Amino acid sequence: MTRHPKPRTSDTSSGIQHERRSQLTIRPIGLDTMGENVVILSRDCNALRPERLAGFRKVAVSVNGASIVANVLIADGLESLGAGEIGLPQPALQRLGVKPGDSAHVSIAPPAASLDAVRAKIRGEELTKAEIQAVVEDLAGHRYTDIEVAAFLIATSSFMTTGEVLALTSCMAAAGTQLKWNRPVVVDKHCIGGIPGNRTTMIVTPIVAAHGLIMPKTSSRAITSPSGTADTMEVLARVELTEDELRDVVDRCNGCIAWGGHVNLSPADDVLISVERPLSIDTPEQMVASILSKKIAAGSTHLLIDMPVGPTAKIRSNIHAQSVRKLFEFVASRLGLVTEIIITDGTGPIGRGIGPALEARDVLEVLDGNPHAPADLREKSIRLAGRLLEYDPKLAGGRGEERARELLEGGDAREALERMIEAQGPPPRPAPIGSLVFEAPAPRDGVVTQIDCFRIARIARTAGAPNDPGAGIDLRKKPGDVVRKGEPLYRIHGLDQSDFSAACEAADEDSGFEIGSAGR
Amino acid sequence: MTRHPKPRTSDTSSGIQHERRSQLTIRPIGLDTMGENVVILSRDCNALRPERLAGFRKVAVSVNGASIVANVLIADGLESLGAGEIGLPQPALQRLGVKPGDSAHVSIAPPAASLDAVRAKIRGEELTKAEIQAVVEDLAGHRYTDIEVAAFLIATSSFMTTGEVLALTSCMAAAGTQLKWNRPVVVDKHCIGGIPGNRTTMIVTPIVAAHGLIMPKTSSRAITSPSGTADTMEVLARVELTEDELRDVVDRCNGCIAWGGHVNLSPADDVLISVERPLSIDTPEQMVASILSKKIAAGSTHLLIDMPVGPTAKIRSNIHAQSVRKLFEFVASRLGLVTEIIITDGTGPIGRGIGPALEARDVLEVLDGNPHAPADLREKSIRLAGRLLEYDPKLAGGRGEERARELLEGGDAREALERMIEAQGPPPRPAPIGSLVFEAPAPRDGVVTQIDCFRIARIARTAGAPNDPGAGIDLRKKPGDVVRKGEPLYRIHGLDQSDFSAACEAADEDSGFEIGSAGR
Repeated sequence: MTRHPKPRTSDTSSGIQHERRSQLTIRPIGLDTMGENVVILSRDCNALRPERLAGFRKVAVSVNGASIVANVLIADGLESLGAGEIGLPQPALQRLGVKPGDSAHVSIAPPAASLDAVRAKIRGEELTKAEIQAVVEDLAGHRYTDIEVAAFLIATSSFMTTGEVLALTSCMAAAGTQLKWNRPVVVDKHCIGGIPGNRTTMIVTPIVAAHGLIMPKTSSRAITSPSGTADTMEVLARVELTEDELRDVVDRCNGCIAWGGHVNLSPADDVLISVERPLSIDTPEQMVASILSKKIAAGSTHLLIDMPVGPTAKIRSNIHAQSVRKLFEFVASRLGLVTEIIITDGTGPIGRGIGPALEARDVLEVLDGNPHAPADLREKSIRLAGRLLEYDPKLAGGRGEERARELLEGGDAREALERMIEAQGPPPRPAPIGSLVFEAPAPRDGVVTQIDCFRIARIARTAGAPNDPGAGIDLRKKPGDVVRKGEPLYRIHGLDQSDFSAACEAADEDSGFEIGSAGR
Repeated sequence: MTRHPKPRTSDTSSGIQHERRSQLTIRPIGLDTMGENVVILSRDCNALRPERLAGFRKVAVSVNGASIVANVLIADGLESLGAGEIGLPQPALQRLGVKPGDSAHVSIAPPAASLDAVRAKIRGEELTKAEIQAVVEDLAGHRYTDIEVAAFLIATSSFMTTGEVLALTSCMAAAGTQLKWNRPVVVDKHCIGGIPGNRTTMIVTPIVAAHGLIMPKTSSRAITSPSGTADTMEVLARVELTEDELRDVVDRCNGCIAWGGHVNLSPADDVLISVERPLSIDTPEQMVASILSKKIAAGSTHLLIDMPVGPTAKIRSNIHAQSVRKLFEFVASRLGLVTEIIITDGTGPIGRGIGPALEARDVLEVLDGNPHAPADLREKSIRLAGRLLEYDPKLAGGRGEERARELLEGGDAREALERMIEAQGPPPRPAPIGSLVFEAPAPRDGVVTQIDCFRIARIARTAGAPNDPGAGIDLRKKPGDVVRKGEPLYRIHGLDQSDFSAACEAADEDSGFEIGSAGR
């Protein structure tokens, strides 16, 4: 039996192995890793042995002072990546700001120290503000893996004290860009969401700007919905503004309607959302921290929250609405943000169009004073704008709505939007409404009693919205309308045949409309 | 203002867009995605638009009946991947069993239905057995993303009823391979872990097999420790056995010491562990479900659990040990597995070697009856083997230890191990003990009062264990030993200069040894 080899003697200066170097030549790789920081190392990498990382240690990669923390994939011949090279796909390449000839330094990233606080939260402890701040800084710095982000999110969704929500909100607001406006009143609005077509921001912002208050609106793109305000605005204008461009547009127009993605407001929120959305969890505590941190970072002083309540909206009962409202009010007041929450009708879509181009059409019809413009979108926008205008001390006490209506009907709001479009620049690509059209027929005579927001959004998304901005749904009937069997309930518009067909099939299977007996 | 394009009329039969096909030509990609199922699609893929997946929808990929659910990366020129191709890295390529000329069918994978149960658990609800079963089946089928696995894990770690633990254990045991042995007594042992060098399995299994009981031992590889039993056994023999090979070895030798990875016992456990470990969370509930599900699936009837308790072990107090023991006993008894938990000394490492080759040396010294063999490893192995032997009705009542000592001292156990090594086959590669050697000196005269298991394990791992099986630590002193200043506390062995240097530095910084005053 000599299976067991005897140890050989040697000493520490034995130089048989060459010294490993941590400096690697950068090789751009034509791969998009979907938002996550990923780098690729050869299995026989000089700098460190990638298999030792085994999927749960990250590496720190730095290039000319910029640095990121990234997951590692191992190349076994991929693009002939060599032992002295590091492959950088997107977004790692862009986040590091690599220039030709740069080399990268890699090392094993130590686990984020704030994970101790995450584990404490998992055990059910209450976190201190300092612990929350450390977590938020590591989230914002992309130092957590997706698994670690999920752990924090789930641990905090099982319980958080109002003190923790307050600390989380203020730390999130502070970790990133903070816009400052030299004005006593900076207004903003936010909709809790879940209502297709509810594109009031694009009408409210021009009304407020036309009045002379400032409203620097940053919006999101759709993630699970058929369109976000940024997607709809992009049908009309460029929305990807830098921070400087955004300031410039607001200086010239009193407002803007831009995508928030380039401005880096509350970046920890973006990281949390990237995990929250796929899990479809959205607790009041996380909602409050998310929304308020973004608004505070954007420099808002007065905020109006539109909270639609309905059986298929995000907030489904008045009891739920009241508890969320209380938490919003508590945290906002402690952080010095004047906040009003108004509960609105969330029983069905607002407007007719669902999808970027169709919604943009509705918005322009309202602003143009077109008699066919959807009245619900117009009236809701006037109501919201009226409340915001009353933050102007001159209009306090109920005159806001009247003033909003004047600015809309007199064409001032239309002109204000036109100025913003000019200042923001032309849209990146034309977005014609999809030429493939299907009319979903009423299955019988009756009255539309309800429209399932979730189902309608899903069909519009299946048709291609928002990636095809011209795809979506154009409602022909709304709740309360009488229909005859075979009459169109809505039109589906598409550009891509296979997506369009899938949407038609989905509508066929379940149109999302409930038709009640006409006699009742 | 003509920014808004008017809709063009058309109909559903418009065939301008070509029909997208879901059949793609397979292209093997020289990339290892570290365990996760990942496929690569061109940005202009014919079958589906990958950017629409945006990182949180998975695709279902099937090839010749085999199918997996996978995350998608987008190729922007990577290896010139075409619109009609799908790039398959490892392990997707291997899991699909692709043969040359195969093509793959891809479609968007629907979210796993059992996620509703995960969300219910996040909200604090108790899950039914049917819900737990659905979750376990989706875990075992790799239908959860890492984020979803983390969500389930964190939600269950905040609270689980004993009924839920019971249901989780039995569903996990049922979801995968189930070994059956035509014997009334099939014994197994498990150590809760955290104790470096504690390689009793490789001594206990041969003793039990030599007696004539059967012990089909499947072990794990190290994940965060310097060596797992499978890593240490692999110094002596092949451990990557298929299910058929494993049965054959057990039939011939009464036992085996194999890696569990190829046998697919409780695959849901492997998925949970892949997320649990990087988060360093390990609740009693998860520990019980993990260990018992594997043992039940392996067909064991009698189980002995070695639970070391010590200040730097996994279980740190007797109170903690008692509560874990109660949960083990409850679940095991309800599932018909006779289980005994013995609490052992976890105050320091067992044996001298830490790292695969060094531990294998200790094991062979004990089995060979070498007078220099570590006595603590020998005595603990005899104690554990004795308890297992008493599951033989003929030895019940306290004669087990005596019999174990006979089998060890008489050389029967050594022969039993030799038979297993023969039957399992030769090791995949030679594993000499590392020739780079550093002796960590005692900082002063005194008595060793304590060894920090965690610190010692970390230094051994830094030196290269278990990836370099010859790397690790060889203890020269144990608690209670008197030392003189400068005398070696342990030797560090390494093969790679940079890892070795890092380990020496770590030992220099904190050796992990506590030296008390000799007078006390």
